[in-house]
Order: sequence, then C-alpha cells, then structure tokens
Amino acid sequence: MKAVVVAAGEGSRMRMTAGKEPFPKPLLPLLGLRIIERVFLAARKAGIKEFVVVIGYRGDEIRRYLGDGSKWGLKIQYAFNEHWLNGNGYSLLAAKPYLESENRFLLLMADHIFEPNLLKHFLQFTDDEIKKVQSDKNLHFLAVDACPEKVTDLEEATKVYTRAGKIIALGKEIKDFNGVDCGIFNFGAGIFETVEKSLKDSGGSLSEALQLVVKTGNLRPFEFKNYYWHDIDQKKDLQQARQKLLQHLLPKKDGIVSRYFNRPISLTITSVLANLSATPNIISFFSFSLCLLGGVLFALGYPLAGGLLAQLASIIDGVDGEIARLKFQESLFGAYLDSILDRYGDAALIGGLTAGSLLGGASSPSFVLIMGFLALTASPLSMLAKEKYANLTGKTYNPLELDGYLRYFPFNRDGRLALIMLGGVFNQLTATLLLLALLTNLQAIYRLFVVRQNLG
Amino acid sequence: MKAVVVAAGEGSRMRMTAGKEPFPKPLLPLLGLRIIERVFLAARKAGIKEFVVVIGYRGDEIRRYLGDGSKWGLKIQYAFNEHWLNGNGYSLLAAKPYLESENRFLLLMADHIFEPNLLKHFLQFTDDEIKKVQSDKNLHFLAVDACPEKVTDLEEATKVYTRAGKIIALGKEIKDFNGVDCGIFNFGAGIFETVEKSLKDSGGSLSEALQLVVKTGNLRPFEFKNYYWHDIDQKKDLQQARQKLLQHLLPKKDGIVSRYFNRPISLTITSVLANLSATPNIISFFSFSLCLLGGVLFALGYPLAGGLLAQLASIIDGVDGEIARLKFQESLFGAYLDSILDRYGDAALIGGLTAGSLLGGASSPSFVLIMGFLALTASPLSMLAKEKYANLTGKTYNPLELDGYLRYFPFNRDGRLALIMLGGVFNQLTATLLLLALLTNLQAIYRLFVVRQNLG
Repeated sequence: MKAVVVAAGEGSRMRMTAGKEPFPKPLLPLLGLRIIERVFLAARKAGIKEFVVVIGYRGDEIRRYLGDGSKWGLKIQYAFNEHWLNGNGYSLLAAKPYLESENRFLLLMADHIFEPNLLKHFLQFTDDEIKKVQSDKNLHFLAVDACPEKVTDLEEATKVYTRAGKIIALGKEIKDFNGVDCGIFNFGAGIFETVEKSLKDSGGSLSEALQLVVKTGNLRPFEFKNYYWHDIDQKKDLQQARQKLLQHLLPKKDGIVSRYFNRPISLTITSVLANLSATPNIISFFSFSLCLLGGVLFALGYPLAGGLLAQLASIIDGVDGEIARLKFQESLFGAYLDSILDRYGDAALIGGLTAGSLLGGASSPSFVLIMGFLALTASPLSMLAKEKYANLTGKTYNPLELDGYLRYFPFNRDGRLALIMLGGVFNQLTATLLLLALLTNLQAIYRLFVVRQNLG
Repeated sequence: MKAVVVAAGEGSRMRMTAGKEPFPKPLLPLLGLRIIERVFLAARKAGIKEFVVVIGYRGDEIRRYLGDGSKWGLKIQYAFNEHWLNGNGYSLLAAKPYLESENRFLLLMADHIFEPNLLKHFLQFTDDEIKKVQSDKNLHFLAVDACPEKVTDLEEATKVYTRAGKIIALGKEIKDFNGVDCGIFNFGAGIFETVEKSLKDSGGSLSEALQLVVKTGNLRPFEFKNYYWHDIDQKKDLQQARQKLLQHLLPKKDGIVSRYFNRPISLTITSVLANLSATPNIISFFSFSLCLLGGVLFALGYPLAGGLLAQLASIIDGVDGEIARLKFQESLFGAYLDSILDRYGDAALIGGLTAGSLLGGASSPSFVLIMGFLALTASPLSMLAKEKYANLTGKTYNPLELDGYLRYFPFNRDGRLALIMLGGVFNQLTATLLLLALLTNLQAIYRLFVVRQNLG
C-alpha cells in the first residue's frame, strides 16, 4: 500500500524569529532524525515501502534532503501542490496522478509522529473491515485517539464523535466529542471525487471534504488508547515530543537498579548522543571497553575508579538499545553482539576484582581464586537460563514473574554491576567476589526449581 | 481419535522352547519397555490418548500388566476376542461395542513398533484426505512403506500395489507390488459391515475383508519412505528391532568426536541402562559428577584419571538423551537441566586443570591463571551463541552449516572434553588450558562474523 505524506504547508506557528521565513517544519531535527524521517521510518516498520510526498512551501529543500528514499530502502515520489496556501484538500488532489492504479492508500502528515504499532494495528483493523464489505471505494478510515483528555493542545486538535463504529461528527469546534483525529487515514479511491466536489462547493481543506464523508456514514474510526503520537505544531510541541519519545524507550523488564538509577542518566546521555552518528553497535563496544578498563583498574589497585567505570558501563549498556529504538536502528545482530560483549565485560570485571584482591595481598589467595572462579562460572548462567527457557517453551522468561523473592536481589546484570561499583567504592574486593559467587550460583540453582515447576 | 490395538494372537513363531506355551508376545521386553508399551507411547506422542486393546491368548496377563493406562496418562479399555484363533477380523468386531460413537478409529498391531512421526504424518495425511470427501464412512487408509526392498522378512510381509493414490492389490502372495503394509490403519465406521460380510462369505482374517475394500477402490495408501517400523514376528526380529531402535537415537548434529568415538560406546551403555530404572535426569547428574570428580583429580595431581573421567563424562553426556528418546522420557526440564549441568561440569574441569597446573608448580602461575580464566569465560559462549541465535531468528544454529572450516576443530563440548582427556593422558595441563582458551574465544569471535553475515 502506498502512503501519501503531506509536507506542503508553511508551518507558520513554528516560526522561530518573528517576521523571518520559517524553516520547513518536516525537516526540523527531533532527537537525531528529521520529523518527516520519523514518519517514514515508523511507517516502514509497519510495512509501508512506497510514499508520495506532497510538497509545496520550500519543497525543493525537502526533496533534496529526502531524495528517492533509497537510503532507507524506500521508494519516494514527489507531487507538487501549487495551491499549498489553500489547504490540504489540494495536497490530496496533487497526489492523485501517482495513485491511479491504487484501490486504497494511506494519508499521513509530515508533522505527525507516531509509534509503529499504531499504524500496524490500524492496518490490521482496516484490512479486516474491508473484507466485510462488497465495495470499499467509498469507505474511509481515520485513526482516533480515544483518550482526548491525554492529548496535549486539545483546543487546536480536530475532535471527533464516534458512535456504533462510525464517526458522526468531526471538527475543531464541536462540543461533544470522545476522540481526537490523529492525522492517519486509510482512504478508498472514491475520496478524490469527494474532495473535488468539496472544492467546488465549500473550501479547500480536507476537513471540509471529510464533512461530506461523515454525512454518508462512511468515515469509520480505528479507536485506540495507548499508542503514542504527537502533532508537532508549535515550538513547545518539539520539546514535549522529545520527552515522550524518550519515555517510550524504557523496556518493561528493567531490573531495579536499572529502572531507578541507570535509566534517568542513560536517557539523558541518549538524548545527547542521538544527535551524533554513533551507532548502537559502537555504543555496545564502548560499554564493553569501559568494563575492560574497569577490570584493569581493579587489577592495578584503583578500586574506586574501577567501580565507577563498572557502573558507567552499566548505564551505557542501556544507551545502545535506547539509541537503536529511538533512531529505528534495531538489528538482530546488534542484540546478539550486545549479549556476547556483556559476557566478556562481566568476565573482565570479575577477573579484575580477582587480580586486584590477589595483588592487594589478600589473606587467603586460594579463597579469592575459588570465589572469582565461581562468580565467573555462574554469571553467564543468568542469561543462558533465560535463553534456554525461551527456546524450549517459546515463552520469554520474565524474572519479575518467575523469580519469586529473588527478584528483589541484585541478580541481573544491572544489580551485579552495582554490587561491583559498591565493592570498588568501599574497597571490599574479596567480599564483592564472595557475594557475586553466592548470588549468581543461588540464582542458577533456584531457577532449576522454577523451571522444573513450570515445565514439569 | 481412539485406537484399537490387536493383542489377541498367540505369537507362536516367537516360541522360545519347542512345545512350551509361548509368553504373550506384546509383553516381551525390548530395550526397557514391553513391545506393546512402545506402541502406546509412540501413539501418545502422535496425540492418541484412548485405546481399546483386543485380548485373547493369555489376555489376563496383558490386562494385569497394562491396567487402565493411567500410569502413562492414557485411557485403556479391553475387548475380549474369544475367536482369537480364527483371525484378526474377529478382533476388530470384538472392539466394535467400544467404538459405537466414533466415526473413525485407528487400528494398530501390538507387535508392530513404529516411530511417532510415522503415525503423526499418517494422521495429518488422512485428515486432509477426509476433508475432500462428503462421506468418509467407507473410506479407509493404510500406512504403506514405499521401500519394500528395505523391509526385513519381505516374504512374510503383506505386500500392496498402489496406483494413482489407491491400493489396487494386497496380499502376502501378490507378485507385483510397490509397497508393504505396515499394520497401521485408519478406518471409517463402515469397515464393520465389510468385516461381517467377509466373515460370512470367505474367512476370518482382516486381509480377506480388506480384499473387499480394495475392490471398491476405497483403501487408500499413505506412502512413506524414511520412517522406522518393525513387525516383530520371530525371535530374530527382536534383535533386529533393538539394533534399529538404537541407531535411530543418534541426533543429526553430533560433533566429530561424539559421532565416531562417543556414540558407539554410549549406545552400548544405553542398551544396558535401558533395562534399569535410571531416569535421564539421574544420568545427567551422574555425568556432571564425573566432571566434578575429574576436576578434583586434576587438582590433586592425578591428570591421567582426571582426563579419562572427562572423556567418560562426555560419553555419558550422550546417554541421558538416548535413554530419554528410547524410553519416551523426554522432557523440557530434562533438556534445561542438562544444559546447566554441562556448564558446571565444564567449569569444574577447567578449574581442576588450572589448580592442577598451579599446584604442580607451573613455571608461570599468572599465565596459567589467565588461560584458565579465558577458557572459563568463553566455553559457555559456545552454547549461549546458539541459544541467542535461535531466539533472535527462530532458526536453529547448525554448526555444520554455519561454522565453516571451524566445524572441523574441537570447539563443541565433545571436542573440548576430548582435548581435556588428551591433556590429562599426556600430563600437559597448561598447554591444554592454552588451547582451550584459544579455541573457545576464537569460536566466539568467529561466530560474531557469521551471525553478522547471516542477520545483517
């Protein structure tokens, strides 16, 4: 399915300096990507590969920046809307020649960012609905946020009123509403006729054409509640969108140290690094290097520095994934690399602790060696147990569900690295090794019982 | 779907001592399970839970041994065929009262063992075929081995000739044939009428009733080539079946040491252990204990004994899986336990090598420690890499395909343990650690490139 992306307007409310010609809004940077890039990449993740971008105001700059889309593996065509001052309806008509052979198409706004799952589920919903009718030429769909109270800048938003699976009113000024238009449409080819009629009779905005559709009962809502989207209209929206995008990077299964200590810091680092070209894999290597350096510092007798580097590595270990999700750079290889490097990073720190304790004149070198050895044996088992469980059962091993009381202990990587940090700060290397050995082996044995209970 | 299991005959060709009353054939032991148990458990694996066992000759003994089937989670009912001397047709009729509410049922022979996948795919095939017809009451199916040349004792077998998806001739004496009846049927309820007619007109054997079905074109073959089954008719069949069952235990992805050295020994051990009650999990613990003991012996200065125990542990490490597959005792927890214990076993041996080398007065203790440390770090990565790959891609990591030239090196567990054995035999502990450290880390790094190429 092709998607039309409307990028023709001036974005006058975004004007940075009074009187000065505004920079094209779709090209404004937002956490390392241009706003319109976020629209393309979210749509790509939902399976859309071909786009028609309608340009108008300073369209050449947009065209020059985006090119033919091949740098993202996409196909981008351009339609010029010479009447861009007169409204969205003209933009839709400008795209018409590129959609001659399409029965349906998507309409997206260059300044409305959204999370990929919103579009993905919208497409599933519309596919199902279309199967129910004989002709879908004049059946149109709009994604509707069913939580208007959460929408920022509600006054400026286009509200909708839905009843029994139909949109029965739509507009900025309507008083009764239960949803908000989030600028994502799925149109049948009949929409062009309606827009042409509306241009003759009333006006050039898409909203006016949609009034005609609403009257026929053919505008259907896809009502959703928990997806993130944002209409970037004014300068303050950019700041709000930044905040929301960052919040949405947090995975659900973070350990306690990670959630309450590491993430606030890693998100700040991510928001800065997003603007640079560092890839997630480079960041994974950097986190590993910090572990390696931390291990060396422990061995050389600088436990404070070693411990702090371990904690920094733990924080940076979150950044690679955050950057990957934020900039649509997730890859299977990245996930694989991260898991292998983490194991080497752990080993470097445990080795450093052991060497530091031995070279620092531990009273019982063989005790230190045995503890280091046991910690090194069991620390990869934490991950290995989860991977094996997932392969055997097809289900994710969720420590919060399955680990019982042990979930409150620092068993997982964020907890282990925090323990190493404390060991360095208080210069208690042998005790740290002892604790690591106990905790990691306890976890491995405990999980044998958990898995036995769950798999029988 | 219910399955009728015919266990009524005398099995006179199995007579052990001339003139003496033969022991009921279904109850003869075959690698730790009675023959009829193998029929039940293979059928259970293909999804069959309810059975009607037709008994005749010494039926009480069979009934007493099997009970109501609850010890296997099955439901077993019994039908007595008083005419058991007169043929299989009577056995089928004896089961009829238990099948009143069934449209279809399976017929299995208590002396025909088969691998679960044969029945599983037979059921898929017949389900698909039945969907194509309006009434399936008089449509019957027979599993046919399409490689008659591989069937032992072909002379005694019931041959079939199939053409265009139908069986057009069937019998022991037919000259033209392209398949062999393997004693697995899927009957529509109409078969009873046919058997009754045949009893009146010709004789009591099922074969005679089937002739009538063949004439109508309603006996359809499920032709297969590579599934294992065996009709256990004479004493020599028991021995042949043992051999074939053991051969079928070998997994396809064995390493070189495992395939050419360990397996012949482990299969011999398995064939003995199968008759005892040792469970696969007990055997996994035993293999782990051997590693632990081997590690201790290395540390105490008995490298030869340590090395030999490591190799023995490697051999026994195959036995748990073999017993599990042979006796239908496979479990997800068993697979999980095995993988965790293997990691601890590896660690015990690497620790033992390191301690043995240090206590034996190695010229450079820190070199020994670093090598032991590196070997311990990377040896779990071999498994971890495969598990992570499988979770990310949904595909199994097959070292024979993906590891390139490295597949010839002793990277996997069988190879690593063989290396440790050699290290012990030649008393070269430090060199063994060095080699282990090099090989395991080389493999981990090499696989990063492999995965990158495959996942992009």
